[in-house]
Amino acid sequence: MAVGTLATVKALDPEDLRAAGSQMILSNAYHLHLRPGDELIRQMGGLHTFMAWDRPILTDSGGFQVFSLSALRTVDEDGVEFRSHIDGSARRFTPESVMQIERNLGADVIMQFDHVIPGQSDAATARDASERSIRWLARCREAFNRIEPAFGVPQALFPIVQGGIHEDLRVEAAKAIKGMHDWQGFGIGGLSVGEAKPDMYRILDCLHAELPSDRPRYLMGVGFPEDLVEGVRRGVDLFDCVAPTRMGRNGTAFTNDGRINIKRAEYRDAGGPLDEGCTCSACTRFTRAYIRHLFVSDEMLGMRLLSLHNVHFLVALMRTARNAIGTRTFDAWSRQWLDRYHSRSQPDE
Amino acid sequence: MAVGTLATVKALDPEDLRAAGSQMILSNAYHLHLRPGDELIRQMGGLHTFMAWDRPILTDSGGFQVFSLSALRTVDEDGVEFRSHIDGSARRFTPESVMQIERNLGADVIMQFDHVIPGQSDAATARDASERSIRWLARCREAFNRIEPAFGVPQALFPIVQGGIHEDLRVEAAKAIKGMHDWQGFGIGGLSVGEAKPDMYRILDCLHAELPSDRPRYLMGVGFPEDLVEGVRRGVDLFDCVAPTRMGRNGTAFTNDGRINIKRAEYRDAGGPLDEGCTCSACTRFTRAYIRHLFVSDEMLGMRLLSLHNVHFLVALMRTARNAIGTRTFDAWSRQWLDRYHSRSQPDE
Repeated sequence: MAVGTLATVKALDPEDLRAAGSQMILSNAYHLHLRPGDELIRQMGGLHTFMAWDRPILTDSGGFQVFSLSALRTVDEDGVEFRSHIDGSARRFTPESVMQIERNLGADVIMQFDHVIPGQSDAATARDASERSIRWLARCREAFNRIEPAFGVPQALFPIVQGGIHEDLRVEAAKAIKGMHDWQGFGIGGLSVGEAKPDMYRILDCLHAELPSDRPRYLMGVGFPEDLVEGVRRGVDLFDCVAPTRMGRNGTAFTNDGRINIKRAEYRDAGGPLDEGCTCSACTRFTRAYIRHLFVSDEMLGMRLLSLHNVHFLVALMRTARNAIGTRTFDAWSRQWLDRYHSRSQPDE
Repeated sequence: MAVGTLATVKALDPEDLRAAGSQMILSNAYHLHLRPGDELIRQMGGLHTFMAWDRPILTDSGGFQVFSLSALRTVDEDGVEFRSHIDGSARRFTPESVMQIERNLGADVIMQFDHVIPGQSDAATARDASERSIRWLARCREAFNRIEPAFGVPQALFPIVQGGIHEDLRVEAAKAIKGMHDWQGFGIGGLSVGEAKPDMYRILDCLHAELPSDRPRYLMGVGFPEDLVEGVRRGVDLFDCVAPTRMGRNGTAFTNDGRINIKRAEYRDAGGPLDEGCTCSACTRFTRAYIRHLFVSDEMLGMRLLSLHNVHFLVALMRTARNAIGTRTFDAWSRQWLDRYHSRSQPDE
């Protein structure tokens, strides 16, 4: 999923995403509640209509902001009190209020409100947040069942497995959540929040056996191309990350030979496309030299072209991974791909 | 013509311009010579290939920069010495060097190198610059004939009529230029550079009889929707201006009921399109409320949507004007259109 936090994927048009083959966009209940307001979006016909995207949308709940805006909030059993990052006003989020917000937005998949903590947190902290998240899940489900969908369209509520980098807590959380309801999919939260990569992989490995294999597993906030391949190796189906658009706006392009920084002098007269063989509308029309010129000259089109290339790249990468799974060649393909990608990436500047 | 000074129309993709019905883009020899370099663009296959625009392109010569960058240059009979606005390096432009640059870029129409002065200049200053521009035109033509086109594709060299706001000088310049060669089109320069609107209209009126009616007349650097209609009333065929994209990036949309500033609070929950009945890809997909949200949230898509709407608006306006000329209803249509547009415009903020 490309990330459209504020009901727009930065630097891109919905038609760019469609052309790139994007199947789903992620947006965010916390941010949209603050600006422009979920009630306004409901009045405008819901998020799909508002942002002109007729394919699936998933909204995150604000749980990630409990982590990322930790200086601006206090957590208690009832919920979280935020000071708005825009105007400093107090905004209380509870499992119930978040369900109302996500009903108003009308996304196809809505995430529970959860308590996200830093990746290196100790077991006691992780247990506390994980158990609270499970209690909040029960309250989310009650509110979800009580509040009618705003547009008569069914929505799926996904639980989120927490537990930090502690395998026993993760397994315990997964079992408790599975026991509550026959969920349509599962979020794996609290990863890619400061822990080491091997810890993330270890947790994914231990959850692999615990989560139902016939339901999508969504690894939240991940990631870079190599993270996606590593995640698929460990049974993950769904990802989201700002990386393709954020790196694109900063001048970095994903290629099958690793990341390149288009601002480097070596591309001044580079006549080839960003990534040889890529079929995106940047690579089929423009040279590296042209896109470098746009970045050197601070022209917006450069940010758009790299963002759309990077989104196209990830979508194509996942398509290749799916095909490899279908032909039972995923293991060999993924090892080869990771070796080549890692060996050639340029340092960021 | 939309303005693509640095080989990109700001905030837009070539496909946006094609969809808006744009027939031609303007670019700039001075700016492209400095960055990324006309030799590089030649090496990359010329400006059309470099920026992926297969419709006509016109390049201005740097004459306007003699006016707009007047603090950074000195003029003598041979040419103009600029200090680069990017790195301060000395760059000498002469009629001959500009022809080489414009041959390297490979635009379809290339403008002579001329000496542009402020709009209120006195008759002596205006005569000096106009006569120098005519001498430079002769040198441009000699160089143009001597230097082969870079891509074997014919280019048209347009002269530029100068003479400030002094009718006798304008008529004199037009006669001298007409006497030199059977030109394929004529630029009208040195307007919209600080003079009063009535002065501009008066000069256009006096040139109307002097310029051949079977050759396009290009009013350089003009303008806003109302200026285009006033220009067509006075026989102008071709315009360029940064207004649609610059105003678009600043939050202003052209509509048939005048300009609107989309950031105003009144549009917070405005469910309609920017301009009722407009068929551009902003108006057919998004509400004023959504585009306002993008501007309030500093999201790039907002700048793109308003820019493409404004370009579409001007292209559609000129199409309507052409049709009215064809049906001999232009005079009545243009008076009505100007009355409605002027009576409803919102102040800029």
